[in-house]
Amino acid sequence: MKSIGILGFGVVGSGVAEVIAMNTEKIAKHMGEEVRVKRILDLRDFPDSPFNNLVTHDSEEFFNDSEISIVVETIGGARVAYEFTKRALSMGKSVVTSNKELVSTHGVELMQLAEDNNCSYLFEAAVGGGIPIIRPLHRCLAANQILKIAGIVNGTTNFILTKMRDEGLSYDDALKQAQANGYAEQNPTADVEGIDAQRKLSILSSIALSGQYVSPDSIHTEGISKLTLDDINFAESINASVKLIAYFSHPEGGVPAVFVAPHVVSKSSLIASVDGVFNAIMVEGNALGESMFYGQGAGKLATASAVVADVLDAGLHLHKDVHITKWYNTDSKVTLDYEDVVVSILVKGDADAVSSTLVSYETSKLADNAVVVKGIAHKDIDAKLPSGATWLHYLG
Amino acid sequence: MKSIGILGFGVVGSGVAEVIAMNTEKIAKHMGEEVRVKRILDLRDFPDSPFNNLVTHDSEEFFNDSEISIVVETIGGARVAYEFTKRALSMGKSVVTSNKELVSTHGVELMQLAEDNNCSYLFEAAVGGGIPIIRPLHRCLAANQILKIAGIVNGTTNFILTKMRDEGLSYDDALKQAQANGYAEQNPTADVEGIDAQRKLSILSSIALSGQYVSPDSIHTEGISKLTLDDINFAESINASVKLIAYFSHPEGGVPAVFVAPHVVSKSSLIASVDGVFNAIMVEGNALGESMFYGQGAGKLATASAVVADVLDAGLHLHKDVHITKWYNTDSKVTLDYEDVVVSILVKGDADAVSSTLVSYETSKLADNAVVVKGIAHKDIDAKLPSGATWLHYLG
Repeated sequence: MKSIGILGFGVVGSGVAEVIAMNTEKIAKHMGEEVRVKRILDLRDFPDSPFNNLVTHDSEEFFNDSEISIVVETIGGARVAYEFTKRALSMGKSVVTSNKELVSTHGVELMQLAEDNNCSYLFEAAVGGGIPIIRPLHRCLAANQILKIAGIVNGTTNFILTKMRDEGLSYDDALKQAQANGYAEQNPTADVEGIDAQRKLSILSSIALSGQYVSPDSIHTEGISKLTLDDINFAESINASVKLIAYFSHPEGGVPAVFVAPHVVSKSSLIASVDGVFNAIMVEGNALGESMFYGQGAGKLATASAVVADVLDAGLHLHKDVHITKWYNTDSKVTLDYEDVVVSILVKGDADAVSSTLVSYETSKLADNAVVVKGIAHKDIDAKLPSGATWLHYLG
Repeated sequence: MKSIGILGFGVVGSGVAEVIAMNTEKIAKHMGEEVRVKRILDLRDFPDSPFNNLVTHDSEEFFNDSEISIVVETIGGARVAYEFTKRALSMGKSVVTSNKELVSTHGVELMQLAEDNNCSYLFEAAVGGGIPIIRPLHRCLAANQILKIAGIVNGTTNFILTKMRDEGLSYDDALKQAQANGYAEQNPTADVEGIDAQRKLSILSSIALSGQYVSPDSIHTEGISKLTLDDINFAESINASVKLIAYFSHPEGGVPAVFVAPHVVSKSSLIASVDGVFNAIMVEGNALGESMFYGQGAGKLATASAVVADVLDAGLHLHKDVHITKWYNTDSKVTLDYEDVVVSILVKGDADAVSSTLVSYETSKLADNAVVVKGIAHKDIDAKLPSGATWLHYLG
């Protein structure tokens, strides 16, 4: 019998208890013994939950329970969760989390702490919810140099953009629907301004660079709150969709570029068909070519099932650091300044005027008022476009 | 320095040497030391290959090289490859392969042999080429019961079906194009009759059932050679595409069903948009919901990169069985007889006549001559359809 403790009994934390209850047999078969939730630490009580008898408010009781060898951290944020994670790892208890904020800000330190204490810090659920992406990217693509990642990693914004397109809603109205459906919080900033995507991109980029840490604050980030229905309709008119893309690019021999921004995505790309709250992450390896991972990027049970998979991995290798990825800081700058990043853009404006102004770039006309310009540095865009023309990032 | 040996220097085997050469640094970083190809066993010489100096024709020299701790088996088939794999595993050398025929027919025995000799038998590349699917299915979805798998796992047939649809070619002409492009062999039977897909489904199903072995010969299999351009066009007319689907279904508390057959796939499903030689595998877990893995299902470097990822996993855990999945035989029948499998079908025929004949089933009319019938046992289909009506499997 392996005993686990859960820190924070919110959506994902309670989902972990539910998944273990619903798939007890399968989980026991995988682990070779039963897995049980022994204690749950939360400030609240949960009288309606079948797991309420496991809840304690006393962190000493929780951490001093020597039977608990694996701690699930589903508090969120980077304050209490940070302190508790350090405490557990320092005691040699493996920690499993879905907390993208904590991993992306303190991952380097926490992974080292795990290694120093012969335990694991695992976070498959931090990106893409239940979609397997952390292990596949690190382990299955280990023989590839990762050239590109383009991910729809935030379901809230994808839901809003899908609603705008399908129902002709304004951004504000679509946001209200997302809030009414429980897909957006009352304060939606972290989602709609791209901060959630930024954190996830920090994690993906650090793995893609074999552990060279890319901090969230080094990632230029634009959200979707300035997009208009006109933008959405313009994309549709050229057989494309607007998606918030977490973008990583690392040409062989070049410097990596990372940013989060809305992109017009051609429908020739599978990722343009990923709608609603679904997530998808396209990864290009220099040997593999393009691959894509698709599924529910959030949701209680989906995310919880990824947490439990990590619990199993940690449990099968107790008192050992089974890190999926190990990060380190470098003194030098890891990624390009955003203004130096070379991008493809879709320009809205008189196509012939744009093409003749930008003769030194590769351009392709999609419609009388739509041209794709390839290989332009971000800092040059506004200076070089004819007046009146506007633009968005483009993914072909 | 870790030394590997390659058995069989064909497309994938030579790709393995190429991937190790092109990504030496990344691979060394992952492994913590350099990985080199020390010897290649093949009956042929390769005067134009930069690796020709490593080729030996002498199997004694190959197997007696005590520096070789990991053997890549890329011979194919289940005869010589079987003998050599047993020989290597018996000596405690881990074996990595892309050989779906060998894994699907002798996997149970070879995995046991690996365990008995403290080494690994790994085969990420056997399904989906370079697409990570074996590890994600077993490890990342470990906390899920796998309810359904629907996979496009054969690029040759998907290329043929895409050509028929896009260029209005007959099956024979599309097959000729596939052969001209190197996507189909001169004897295309294993691909077009679904045998390759059957082997891959055997592997996926055995993993989905936590190791309960599903043999290829227990899987009802139909290929694409009987499909006509009319079938393809009919599917298009109702906004769907014809795909060869490897199908696994395991309702909670029920008996698993497995079969390979052409399906009409609604374009509301992402898998319908997977064209050409690409593969995609949709997996539904009871906690995760639907996820999908997409990419190049074949191709020299793509497949080789998955082989090398397994080499790294084996190399990081030498003298230990790091099996991704461990299979076992059961005395009882694992899956339903095909005639008892309950399916959804698309019926071509007068929609009202079909609906009124099949009143006891859930039907939905898609067009005057097209009805979807859900939940019908295979054995009942032909008996119950009105005369003149024809049908294909349907995936909604």
